[in-house]
Amino acid sequence: MSDHHKHRKSIVNRLARIEGHVRSVKDMAASDRDCGDLLIQLAAIRSALDNCGKLILKDHLEGCVVEAVKEGDDKVMDKLNDAIDKFIR
Amino acid sequence: MSDHHKHRKSIVNRLARIEGHVRSVKDMAASDRDCGDLLIQLAAIRSALDNCGKLILKDHLEGCVVEAVKEGDDKVMDKLNDAIDKFIR
Repeated sequence: MSDHHKHRKSIVNRLARIEGHVRSVKDMAASDRDCGDLLIQLAAIRSALDNCGKLILKDHLEGCVVEAVKEGDDKVMDKLNDAIDKFIR
Repeated sequence: MSDHHKHRKSIVNRLARIEGHVRSVKDMAASDRDCGDLLIQLAAIRSALDNCGKLILKDHLEGCVVEAVKEGDDKVMDKLNDAIDKFIR
């Protein structure tokens, strides 16, 4: 794993927890649980996804972008802007 | 599965696909893929979650709520409002 992705281990762990959470909500849906209960769990998953996304953005800013600017690589700013456009609404 | 949850099968299928999508992004993160690529995938997962949530709300309105109103159960409106508060931002 690259040095400039210092939060990557935590990001993988968060995604593993989110995966398990989605699986348990799928099981809740399959066993005919209340719509309201499902919605509350989906909101929790969305919030966990957003926090994971924030951590990825941090990694990107602290590592990749700083490094690329130092090396005079302009394309990385375009890619960052594109990712922010897609992620933040 | 109750009659009043007519979208439930589709909801379970969507959640199964979202679960697989989160797993594949976790694998991307573990194999040191670009931050921008990860963010774009997370945005796609969030959008799939939101669509799944909309379908659950539809089920809830078309089935549970209509039925409860007919039967004079007021508590269901409180539960629906609570779920909407938590889900819509």
